[in-house]
Amino acid sequence: MIDIAAQFGDNLARARRQADLSQEELSVMASLHRTEISQLERGLRIARIDTLVKLASSLEVSAGDLLAGLSWSPGGKRLGAFVERREK
Amino acid sequence: MIDIAAQFGDNLARARRQADLSQEELSVMASLHRTEISQLERGLRIARIDTLVKLASSLEVSAGDLLAGLSWSPGGKRLGAFVERREK
Repeated sequence: MIDIAAQFGDNLARARRQADLSQEELSVMASLHRTEISQLERGLRIARIDTLVKLASSLEVSAGDLLAGLSWSPGGKRLGAFVERREK
Repeated sequence: MIDIAAQFGDNLARARRQADLSQEELSVMASLHRTEISQLERGLRIARIDTLVKLASSLEVSAGDLLAGLSWSPGGKRLGAFVERREK
């Protein structure tokens, strides 16, 4: 199991440092509270997609870059169900 | 101003139809409630990034595909605003 919030937080903190921005600067560019950025970087909350778009554009990275390391293995299409079995 | 939820909902519905999946089938693959998928497609709620990853993987598209048309113009001294991005 991946800790989604922690992985995203690591990605965000790394991208922010690479962009040489403070949390305060990023918060102004992305119109977010600095507190929210701090909480996201520490894995204390999970971002919504509008926040993802704001952060990725402000950091000049792709949304995929900020989601690096996050993946999902899809389940099968159908739920199990009782079926009729014909006796031979 | 872009309606983030509506744009994402359009992208999601289009990708789901291209994958030839019903809302029910997608909900099973992504371990989400069918109701949530319905609400997302109708632009009634904004997905979190964990939901984005589940949906993109289940539909075999990138997160960026589901975020098509969503972009953010970062503020500097000015406040940022969502802007329309034209697809080529």
